[in-house]
Amino acid sequence: MKILVIGAAGMIGRKLTARLRKEGAGELILHDVLPFDGASAVSDLSTPGEAEKLVASRPDLIFHLAAIVSGEAEADFEKGYRINLDGTRGLFEAVRKAGGGYRPKLVFTSSIAVFGSPFPPAIGDEFLNAPLTSYGTQKAIGELLLSDYSRRGFFDGVGIRLPTICVRPGKPNKAASGFFSGIIREPLAGQEAVLPVPETVRHWFASPRAAIDFLMHAATLDSAKLGTRRNLSMPGISATVGEQIEALRKVAGDKAARLIRREPDQTIMRIVEGWPQNFDARRALALGFRADASFEEIIRIHVADELQGTPQPRTNSA
Amino acid sequence: MKILVIGAAGMIGRKLTARLRKEGAGELILHDVLPFDGASAVSDLSTPGEAEKLVASRPDLIFHLAAIVSGEAEADFEKGYRINLDGTRGLFEAVRKAGGGYRPKLVFTSSIAVFGSPFPPAIGDEFLNAPLTSYGTQKAIGELLLSDYSRRGFFDGVGIRLPTICVRPGKPNKAASGFFSGIIREPLAGQEAVLPVPETVRHWFASPRAAIDFLMHAATLDSAKLGTRRNLSMPGISATVGEQIEALRKVAGDKAARLIRREPDQTIMRIVEGWPQNFDARRALALGFRADASFEEIIRIHVADELQGTPQPRTNSA
Repeated sequence: MKILVIGAAGMIGRKLTARLRKEGAGELILHDVLPFDGASAVSDLSTPGEAEKLVASRPDLIFHLAAIVSGEAEADFEKGYRINLDGTRGLFEAVRKAGGGYRPKLVFTSSIAVFGSPFPPAIGDEFLNAPLTSYGTQKAIGELLLSDYSRRGFFDGVGIRLPTICVRPGKPNKAASGFFSGIIREPLAGQEAVLPVPETVRHWFASPRAAIDFLMHAATLDSAKLGTRRNLSMPGISATVGEQIEALRKVAGDKAARLIRREPDQTIMRIVEGWPQNFDARRALALGFRADASFEEIIRIHVADELQGTPQPRTNSA
Repeated sequence: MKILVIGAAGMIGRKLTARLRKEGAGELILHDVLPFDGASAVSDLSTPGEAEKLVASRPDLIFHLAAIVSGEAEADFEKGYRINLDGTRGLFEAVRKAGGGYRPKLVFTSSIAVFGSPFPPAIGDEFLNAPLTSYGTQKAIGELLLSDYSRRGFFDGVGIRLPTICVRPGKPNKAASGFFSGIIREPLAGQEAVLPVPETVRHWFASPRAAIDFLMHAATLDSAKLGTRRNLSMPGISATVGEQIEALRKVAGDKAARLIRREPDQTIMRIVEGWPQNFDARRALALGFRADASFEEIIRIHVADELQGTPQPRTNSA
């Protein structure tokens, strides 16, 4: 089996690649816009002709993970639409035009950013897409195209709406959502973290490990079970910031929790207010997608996968 | 005030133009892809540069009615996307790039085709867009773009999802929905009509007069009242085919109703099964949009506006 991963250099892309290699899933074609170790192809997907090159070898399975992230798509309107809309559509068109009965499986990473407030207490599978960002708009359009191209038989698509990935490994970034990971990741590394919102703020999370499980499950899902609705909200963990901190305390002790410094930021609070807090991801659960067990487990996965099993503060106090 | 009507040669376009003229609404710029009486501009909106020409005179109000209809968008995949998606996006881009503080009001005609079965008993304002046609997909994408461009401040947009327009004047066409109008229009003209579905089939209707009222109301709506959700399902009349026929009998007598010939068509029945039957259009009603009073009124509007007030069969029997 030939597998194309678009956006292979990102955090999810790298973890997915490692998992596909470990499982001996097949021949991997790894693509990103920037050079990276193990790259098969480096190009801007939105440049005419590039998507055609990527599908020329007729991969059986395509993971389309590439995207301009939320903050950048909001700051650079044209770039966001070019990559997230035109890039995605260009890929879909390349597959459609390949012809000769080519009909690959295609897994598209969408986002809970396709939803915008006001929300019901838990967002169900029939709730409207009313995004409040350009990124969310572009993902929602990608979902619609995926459904129509699948219905037409051009490929066999599944769109999965990932919860906010937590704990994101690596350095802090400037994303408005960055603190959800930062208040766990930094204290676990013995470093101070800034919390810009009150502890009552609630959000929807999945570990990187759960995200990779979602992608692998989507790739092998019998799409006959999806019917015509091919985009699914993934299951996750709904937790308040207070619950996040309590879980951190359980895993790494008081010392870690004390490294969180409250520094309210009105701008971030306003942005976060428009974000989903909770889902009723019934369809995905019925189709066999599995969430993390608890926010505590989400932290333990980070400790196991990124910190060789040992949080920093505990080590210090030992 | 300068008013641009795109798709001015269509049935709705012509009626809207007449209404705008009657009300002395302002200077009209009338556009369509084919030449027509009174045209200001004739061009393919999806040709690069054409949208820019249309907005060069900076109309204060834009009605975007142009579209490849459902049947054709399904039969010709590329043409549907080119006109309904690229044409719409090209118009929105032309407005965005005009610059200099230009921010017109923009009214976009969407469709109940953005919804796909399975449905709740009445489709509410928070029900998902899961279209089952390429046309519905293209309209749903237009809605998402309209919301994002409005949120960004490029224009002040309102999208209105029109019910199936009934009674459509003119000749029968090959649209799968054609019979909903045909079984009223043809008997009123003393001619036989074919009914391809059972009388239990239920659908969602508005008269052409109501549709024009929706457009006029949308154009003057204070969009602050819309908030971030700028696309609205219009109110309408939910009626079964049996109720349509009963209303025809009331307006034009048994003689008219007897002109309907039952000729079941499995293909049409299957298509119609995926269509919305009923809505709870609460938001639009609260914003002052008004539906027809009954299906009987819908027929009387057709008789008044298209038949000089006199249905044919009554005249014959007089």
